[in-house]
Amino acid sequence: MRFPCSRMVLTLVLCAAPLAAQQPLQLASPDGRNRVTVQVRDGGLFYAVQRDGRVLLLPSRLGFEFRGAPPLRDSLAITGATAAAFDSTFTQPWGEVARVRDQHHELRVAVAEQGGLRRRFEVVFRAFDDGIGFRYELPAQPNLGDFEIQEELTEFSFGDNPTAWWIASDRPRLDRSEQLYSAGPLSTLDSVQTPLTMRTTTGGYVVLHEADLVDYPRTFLAGRGMESRVLRAALAPWADGVKVRGRTPFQSPWRTIQVADRAAGLAPALLGLKLNPPSRIANPSWIRPMKYVGIWWGMHLNLNTWKAGPQHGATTENAKRYIDFAARNGFGGVLVEGWNLGWGGYLSDQLEQFDFIRSYPDYDLPAVAAYAKSKGVELIAHNETQGQIANYEQQLEAAYRYYQSLGIHSIKSGYVADTVGGGHSHYGQFAVRHHRKVIETAARYDIMLDVHEPIHDTGERRTWPNMMTREGARGQEYNAWGAEGGNPPEHETMLFFTRLLGGPMDFTPGIFDLLIQSANGRPRAPEEARVRTTLAKQLALYVVLYSPLQMAADLPQNYEGHPAFRFIRDVAVDWDTTAVLDGRIGDYVVVARKTRDRDDWFLGAITDEEGRTLTASLDFLPAGRRYVAEIYADAPGAHWLSAPLEYAISERPVDATTWLELKLAPGGGQAIRIRPAN
Amino acid sequence: MRFPCSRMVLTLVLCAAPLAAQQPLQLASPDGRNRVTVQVRDGGLFYAVQRDGRVLLLPSRLGFEFRGAPPLRDSLAITGATAAAFDSTFTQPWGEVARVRDQHHELRVAVAEQGGLRRRFEVVFRAFDDGIGFRYELPAQPNLGDFEIQEELTEFSFGDNPTAWWIASDRPRLDRSEQLYSAGPLSTLDSVQTPLTMRTTTGGYVVLHEADLVDYPRTFLAGRGMESRVLRAALAPWADGVKVRGRTPFQSPWRTIQVADRAAGLAPALLGLKLNPPSRIANPSWIRPMKYVGIWWGMHLNLNTWKAGPQHGATTENAKRYIDFAARNGFGGVLVEGWNLGWGGYLSDQLEQFDFIRSYPDYDLPAVAAYAKSKGVELIAHNETQGQIANYEQQLEAAYRYYQSLGIHSIKSGYVADTVGGGHSHYGQFAVRHHRKVIETAARYDIMLDVHEPIHDTGERRTWPNMMTREGARGQEYNAWGAEGGNPPEHETMLFFTRLLGGPMDFTPGIFDLLIQSANGRPRAPEEARVRTTLAKQLALYVVLYSPLQMAADLPQNYEGHPAFRFIRDVAVDWDTTAVLDGRIGDYVVVARKTRDRDDWFLGAITDEEGRTLTASLDFLPAGRRYVAEIYADAPGAHWLSAPLEYAISERPVDATTWLELKLAPGGGQAIRIRPAN
Repeated sequence: MRFPCSRMVLTLVLCAAPLAAQQPLQLASPDGRNRVTVQVRDGGLFYAVQRDGRVLLLPSRLGFEFRGAPPLRDSLAITGATAAAFDSTFTQPWGEVARVRDQHHELRVAVAEQGGLRRRFEVVFRAFDDGIGFRYELPAQPNLGDFEIQEELTEFSFGDNPTAWWIASDRPRLDRSEQLYSAGPLSTLDSVQTPLTMRTTTGGYVVLHEADLVDYPRTFLAGRGMESRVLRAALAPWADGVKVRGRTPFQSPWRTIQVADRAAGLAPALLGLKLNPPSRIANPSWIRPMKYVGIWWGMHLNLNTWKAGPQHGATTENAKRYIDFAARNGFGGVLVEGWNLGWGGYLSDQLEQFDFIRSYPDYDLPAVAAYAKSKGVELIAHNETQGQIANYEQQLEAAYRYYQSLGIHSIKSGYVADTVGGGHSHYGQFAVRHHRKVIETAARYDIMLDVHEPIHDTGERRTWPNMMTREGARGQEYNAWGAEGGNPPEHETMLFFTRLLGGPMDFTPGIFDLLIQSANGRPRAPEEARVRTTLAKQLALYVVLYSPLQMAADLPQNYEGHPAFRFIRDVAVDWDTTAVLDGRIGDYVVVARKTRDRDDWFLGAITDEEGRTLTASLDFLPAGRRYVAEIYADAPGAHWLSAPLEYAISERPVDATTWLELKLAPGGGQAIRIRPAN
Repeated sequence: MRFPCSRMVLTLVLCAAPLAAQQPLQLASPDGRNRVTVQVRDGGLFYAVQRDGRVLLLPSRLGFEFRGAPPLRDSLAITGATAAAFDSTFTQPWGEVARVRDQHHELRVAVAEQGGLRRRFEVVFRAFDDGIGFRYELPAQPNLGDFEIQEELTEFSFGDNPTAWWIASDRPRLDRSEQLYSAGPLSTLDSVQTPLTMRTTTGGYVVLHEADLVDYPRTFLAGRGMESRVLRAALAPWADGVKVRGRTPFQSPWRTIQVADRAAGLAPALLGLKLNPPSRIANPSWIRPMKYVGIWWGMHLNLNTWKAGPQHGATTENAKRYIDFAARNGFGGVLVEGWNLGWGGYLSDQLEQFDFIRSYPDYDLPAVAAYAKSKGVELIAHNETQGQIANYEQQLEAAYRYYQSLGIHSIKSGYVADTVGGGHSHYGQFAVRHHRKVIETAARYDIMLDVHEPIHDTGERRTWPNMMTREGARGQEYNAWGAEGGNPPEHETMLFFTRLLGGPMDFTPGIFDLLIQSANGRPRAPEEARVRTTLAKQLALYVVLYSPLQMAADLPQNYEGHPAFRFIRDVAVDWDTTAVLDGRIGDYVVVARKTRDRDDWFLGAITDEEGRTLTASLDFLPAGRRYVAEIYADAPGAHWLSAPLEYAISERPVDATTWLELKLAPGGGQAIRIRPAN
């Protein structure tokens, strides 16, 4: 197999031969548009990135500071370099696309201190058409064995001042990523979370994130203020302030720089998957994306409690009611929260220890599990840990074995805590290790995971396809909470271009009782917390916000007999193809996805508080075939504030030549099923 | 004169009579849409604001903390209340509108401590159709004479979580308001500057600001984090940390809450003018809005220096060249920067003391002033203080007398410094007193002021119409500075809805050399600092960004013989009427203004990095009259990045029934003169 660019790549290696000169090494993406330059200046190691010959990143420092050892930063020299080209395609057992082509050029740069401890390390760069990835590798060596990293010095020094859509990394209590997004110049950023999505002043889009986070802290990005355009990696700490504990040989996660010409070109974001190792699960037949319902929303409306008592949600009878509803409507799973002992102290000062096996007396888990199985439905076990890592890990094997024996194949877990395991950052190396242990243990017991308050997604699902979905952003639940007042109409149009670029999100869409009348029989006032979308937008979220485990979050009684419920029953959760037709960050997005198992397409369009009329070409359909579009739209006069419940269902014949006009109400959306005309 | 609402207002006073009960007092705006409620709860004084019966502000605390005295906050009771209604119209000698109607209802609430020092104060609320204002008044009394305020406790407790367009108040060095704007939820704000523009989740617009700032610090707004929707007044300090030094009787500035249903309804912002006292200048005939050119841009391009030397900009010869250019093209003024002694240490560690009378040897001020007069042009003196307040105040009388003797009627001043007068905040009471002293002194010598690095505008121009315009935001100069990389295409669409709601801004538009080729003969690269607009947008800024002193900022040689320069010559600087036709914050804005002296209209439209086609009805024109529109538009293919210089000039007949289609290029604009067809 020959690669058009490989000769260019190899010459780079050659021209790097006389290393005394330390001239820059270069690496280009297969399409030649993305270019990395690596160079030593005054003994420091720097990389720079260009796109289309234009500066994206100015020379940006690489290196580390250690505890108990001098920094690995000064008097460095490039001692060798190799380049190579790769092209392969892999299939994901589930996802927003079935096949992913991994075509990239790689440059491996060997670096050594020219004195002192003469420590050596390598930096591996990979240039893809959709971005750049690089990671540090520390080989085993006499003067670098066990180490403690205090700072990773990696910088991203921007050539201009892009607009960034960000959430802070340093908010007390909100450390859990459940924030609303702000937009502003990179030069004003303090410390923010990734994926960090930016629009450059020359109109391109850039996303900074990371991939293959295995035994390292989560990375934030910190600005310097004073109009600096430099962001630096900021690692979440251990309780004692150390950032990374390791022993050579060691490798860091990949730092990723995703690029796109249009906002719509950012999704689906596959760069991270390409930078994770292939699947470790030989036979993933037990891993099945599904829609689910559950005993959950009622707790957020204060109709039910997690803990036992008169309002207890997780009763045998209630669970069976949900199972019947799920079976009648073709849902694969039923989530039951608050079933196990330990909820007495939840969100209070006196934490009880959670028990992940023993249930409250009014909930007969084996009986419920058996009833579910008899109805062809699976229970989803719920494990809230409150960040009590030791307590959870003690019970992990026994609990998972027990769940497996009951035919339970999925767990929704929770980590509602600011610090974990005795003061370690919720996002530090300690927590990353725990989450990886949970993923691998779950895999041994055929268990799929839906993690709330998670470490952010860095592509784990390629290696461990039982790592299905996560929360890790501000979800639907905020629309139920008076105190925090709900999400603004633009929120989901932000999530698509930010949080969702990391990976799937368990947003829990599908609230039909938009005025939260269920809570106490009367509609909430406009200024109270309620769902700030139209009903059609709730349907569109099933297509727009991808999750392999997708909830129908509302109470069954709000779905029963509701005509629009048909879309939730019909919509798929696993996709062969994804085409983002149009979008602007924080404004609107239009997505079309083809199901894997049938020739069905689904289209979702959502807008912020502005009403819009968008046009969508259906030229993604195969030419010549006739289809029928089942359209769930905002009715004339619909408005997220004044008339959120107004919707209209219609059908029309369509084919690849059709242009659809999508009329979206303020805070509205449109959901369309496109099925073959038989 | 009778007021439709006055009876309603009076009943409020009556129902407030049995004060023991402490039931809430209420005040409504003339149109009844804005409603203030004042109430004591648990001994604390609170106000709340509703609009259209919907919560805008929840009960929000009022009060003070003192140094050396207990806080004025607890065990309070309302001891009396009076209400009244007012309706009057005043004329501004210059402005974005000629006449302002001040129609409001007033509620004056007397409050006293029920024990302790039994201190008394009053809070005066005024309800207008376009917003609410309130201020504290501290009468003379035994236990409250001389005082030092440590905190003003005024809160703004929002009922929902609006989107705010903000700049930080706490950036080192950028304390001077020269920042790019960010947009985000109020719940994420730290400490920000006013005017603070917000869009509520129910779609209305709110602007928090202040009015009539005379002897008090500038006020910032500080959030509490943790998803709080409460902003609290945060006062800029004296060097010793005290916020306000005063003696009763004393009154605070007005706290203003401007409201509008649409973003376009926010401008022109007249609430602040209505809350300032009438003019103190009996005969303002010497106050004349004008366009000006000057020796300025060349310094920012490093072609010239402020200080003397081979590149000195302020030479007699150069000044005469500018005067000739101004006279030929009908400009009223010529600014000359760097003319006076003291620039040797500017922006360096060794500050020289500025001399505001003696000029460098190569600049013969009397001769230049005489030459200007002979050409019918006025010199604009430049006074950079570097924050050396004592030095400036010492020379104030002598310098202003000297300028007056030379026929100089305007000064552009500067305060490039982080702290002033020995460590006082650039925005503290010390600085506010200085600026007021300068305004009053200037008025005695018939001098108009254009203040850079100012205290923000709180409507001073009503009382002192010689206080013409200010900078106080990130202006055109940033487009010349490599280090700070220029302003993004959206910047001016932000300024219109934020900074400009405070008052006029000396943005210095009109750069034609958008690629800054003048700097060194070659166009700057796209990633370098340059002007990120099209040429037509530069013209549109003359209409959009109001300033009574409006600069044509580019070098004369870039204007000579340029067809588009005709618009800058024609455009007015003083307006009878202003109509904001359309706009979205940070996206685009379309403004039409009628000149005072002729039946000429000017229309300006600008957009951010998105190209847009907008339609504008000319129904603001008198019916039946025929006009000609002189249109300066982006040419097809124009683009702020790739083709900023492409423009087209055309003419067409128009009248009140005309709909104009405005095609704006990405980063573009359109400027139109509408003159009667004779």
